[in-house]
Amino acid sequence: MTSPSPQALDALKAALGDGGWTDDPQLIAPWLTEWRNRWTGHTPLMLTPRSTEEVARAVRICAEHRVPIIPQGGGTGLVGGQIPYGEVLISLRKMRAIRDVTPLDDAMTVEAGLTLLEAQQAASAAGRTFPLSLAAEGSATIGGVISTNAGGTQVVRYGMMRDLVLGIEAVLPSGEVFNGLKRLRKDNTGYDLKQLLIGAEGTLGVVTAATLKLFPVLRSRAVAIVGLEAAAASIELLARAKAETGGAVEAFELMKRLGMALVLKNIPDTREPLESTPEWYVLIEIASGQPGAAEAQMERLLEVAFEEGLITDAAIAQNDAQRAAFWRLREEHSAGLKPEGGGWKHDVSVPISRIADYIDEATAAVERFHPGARVSVFGHVGDGNLHYDVLPGAGQDVAAFIGRWKEGSQVIHDVVARYDGSISAEHGLGRLKTEEAMRYKSAVEIETMRAIRHAMDPLRIMNPAVLF
Amino acid sequence: MTSPSPQALDALKAALGDGGWTDDPQLIAPWLTEWRNRWTGHTPLMLTPRSTEEVARAVRICAEHRVPIIPQGGGTGLVGGQIPYGEVLISLRKMRAIRDVTPLDDAMTVEAGLTLLEAQQAASAAGRTFPLSLAAEGSATIGGVISTNAGGTQVVRYGMMRDLVLGIEAVLPSGEVFNGLKRLRKDNTGYDLKQLLIGAEGTLGVVTAATLKLFPVLRSRAVAIVGLEAAAASIELLARAKAETGGAVEAFELMKRLGMALVLKNIPDTREPLESTPEWYVLIEIASGQPGAAEAQMERLLEVAFEEGLITDAAIAQNDAQRAAFWRLREEHSAGLKPEGGGWKHDVSVPISRIADYIDEATAAVERFHPGARVSVFGHVGDGNLHYDVLPGAGQDVAAFIGRWKEGSQVIHDVVARYDGSISAEHGLGRLKTEEAMRYKSAVEIETMRAIRHAMDPLRIMNPAVLF
Repeated sequence: MTSPSPQALDALKAALGDGGWTDDPQLIAPWLTEWRNRWTGHTPLMLTPRSTEEVARAVRICAEHRVPIIPQGGGTGLVGGQIPYGEVLISLRKMRAIRDVTPLDDAMTVEAGLTLLEAQQAASAAGRTFPLSLAAEGSATIGGVISTNAGGTQVVRYGMMRDLVLGIEAVLPSGEVFNGLKRLRKDNTGYDLKQLLIGAEGTLGVVTAATLKLFPVLRSRAVAIVGLEAAAASIELLARAKAETGGAVEAFELMKRLGMALVLKNIPDTREPLESTPEWYVLIEIASGQPGAAEAQMERLLEVAFEEGLITDAAIAQNDAQRAAFWRLREEHSAGLKPEGGGWKHDVSVPISRIADYIDEATAAVERFHPGARVSVFGHVGDGNLHYDVLPGAGQDVAAFIGRWKEGSQVIHDVVARYDGSISAEHGLGRLKTEEAMRYKSAVEIETMRAIRHAMDPLRIMNPAVLF
Repeated sequence: MTSPSPQALDALKAALGDGGWTDDPQLIAPWLTEWRNRWTGHTPLMLTPRSTEEVARAVRICAEHRVPIIPQGGGTGLVGGQIPYGEVLISLRKMRAIRDVTPLDDAMTVEAGLTLLEAQQAASAAGRTFPLSLAAEGSATIGGVISTNAGGTQVVRYGMMRDLVLGIEAVLPSGEVFNGLKRLRKDNTGYDLKQLLIGAEGTLGVVTAATLKLFPVLRSRAVAIVGLEAAAASIELLARAKAETGGAVEAFELMKRLGMALVLKNIPDTREPLESTPEWYVLIEIASGQPGAAEAQMERLLEVAFEEGLITDAAIAQNDAQRAAFWRLREEHSAGLKPEGGGWKHDVSVPISRIADYIDEATAAVERFHPGARVSVFGHVGDGNLHYDVLPGAGQDVAAFIGRWKEGSQVIHDVVARYDGSISAEHGLGRLKTEEAMRYKSAVEIETMRAIRHAMDPLRIMNPAVLF
């Protein structure tokens, strides 16, 4: 990539004016390093536009001078798609307005730089819920969550970000503004351009605002952790839970003994949730519009599950503190693994019915490839989405193990491909996985994506190193 | 459009062989006339491929010879998008296999020519529900329902077809097969090409198969018809219904006195559902996973609604026969209007909160444009989708009235545009509305769609007269 010319940089600075840009390395530095220190990039200029018009002005200049650009939100992405290596950085963090909230439409229009948490709070203030929830929600922005089509823990009921967006405003690679901010539930008047922008990782335009779907606040909620002998039982249990509750399952999170043990060992103030120490755990959350209904549904579900031999143990949270403690065991899984010396991490999905077989086959493949390695599996069974992490065996050389990461991941991804799965369920491809994805995508799919990208961004100025 | 050359037609016949095509005008005729007789087209050849490979072979030949083609399913589309005027017709009706049903994945893969009703039945046989439902479901095919992103009566709970498709197999305009048949709930590995094909009205490829989302069968169901003084009350009532049931509203259908009166007058075996004769009716359906819960929720909702003065009258269906009778009053609305001499029909959407204001303003505009005309409004309040039909006034010259259809529709669509609405909520643009849509779409949106279309179909052979 050629560096932006001084003329281009000057034009950008002039166009955005004071407060709209910085080239002070100290001010830019925090936005150049991925939060787990995997990538540290560099940029000649960080733009901080305050309006859609300013974004459009900047992109027009970039198009004119062929300057590559990367849009950035909260910087919490997990695949390095937000880190510039010479591209101009456009930070959306100053565009944080809540443009409108209309509860009767179950809709809310907010700007891209608003954090997910702030969006949830705005929905709550209007007597509604915005249900997308993930660990980084205090920093992750709506624009970033849209551009990566984020998932999280409640996808089983509400879907991915893709399912929660009614409309999008974006600056296209030409610098033109696409105003697709609609509060409509139905609109069949041509191609759904917003769906193309969602999950495009900033390669087709800069998302500047979005209209989000809101949902009713549910009045009862029950959380339980159950023990299972085998992962296969969780699949049947999920089907049971959906049937018993008519689709009121909000979360259904599988955890393996190893991950739970490491959380209990490495994270303070955690305790074993069950009397027994089963090989597999599932955290189940049910929510209902009717007071008391979620609790009743949970009790009936566990009863049936015991009768049918699907579960061996269960504990229902009795209050908010217990609910939070149960959830913490799940949410600290990544942190619990960290002190064990790092590992190969994977965010994969397979058809739900094949989860147990996939785990068996992938684990056998890992054992052949790196005997003694330890496998931690946790994730969203309801979405077929597993965070499949491999740790060095006790006493193994950690550096040597980490050195085999790329090869080891291919072993795991090859099994995913055989199971008709995805090598990136919810994190995207970014800088981390674009090349790896080329091994599994068909030529026709890659060609079609490239043709669409070329049609929308013929100069390839938008996040050029990411995607195909 | 130039006619296909004899060489091209011969190549297509040879490629598909016996039983794969016909040029017998008598056999083709039923597929050339739109079912309400609005369009009657012509074609030199109807292809009836029996496999994806045969579709691919045909499209490759069409691309080679620059022969325009139109894919067709059940032929029930309402905007003429399925009617050829010289294009070769590719009927998908021989591709009707149910490739697999995997209840544990809540997924089912079927070919494009299967009818919606058959798909629903296959889901039921597996102990699941496929919830998309519309009047033409006995003839409409999965491929057609995908290509038009059909809606229907249960969108308020389950979304449009767009929301119900996990994967798509399609033959692209180049003749290449895109195999996107996934049973995955999460897959963030590039642009979501299936979303581009959904609702593309056959302009970006021929959908040959799809993997559909299934849902749990719900165990209780309640249907009521309520009376309201004003349409505005229905908006508040909907919000109440969603809150009281936690989103368990399956249908929420507004009807105006005029439409109800015409159903009662023109359709045999129908009777007034309420003691009073209110100006507005809403049919509400609630369904729940818990036996008895839907009935209880409906009773509580109606109690609250009476207390708050939202409704003036209500009747809850006491059995399946009454439920069917209530639904019939809604479903016969189009048929009930027909004997009144035809009318200007519109399938529009506006933000839910603005429905009542929209109805008032549109009706005033119609009154100014054609004094005495009668307005019938019915539709899906939960989706902001109204079927807004205008009938000649009593004693008015019907032919003269019909003659003003185009101009009258523009009056109505102009109000829709002022309300940030859509001039085609669920029927698509087809031959009927493509030109009209050009009046309301922004230049950037049209240019972007054209660029994408050109990237995927540079010869513009796929349904060339439809969309931009």
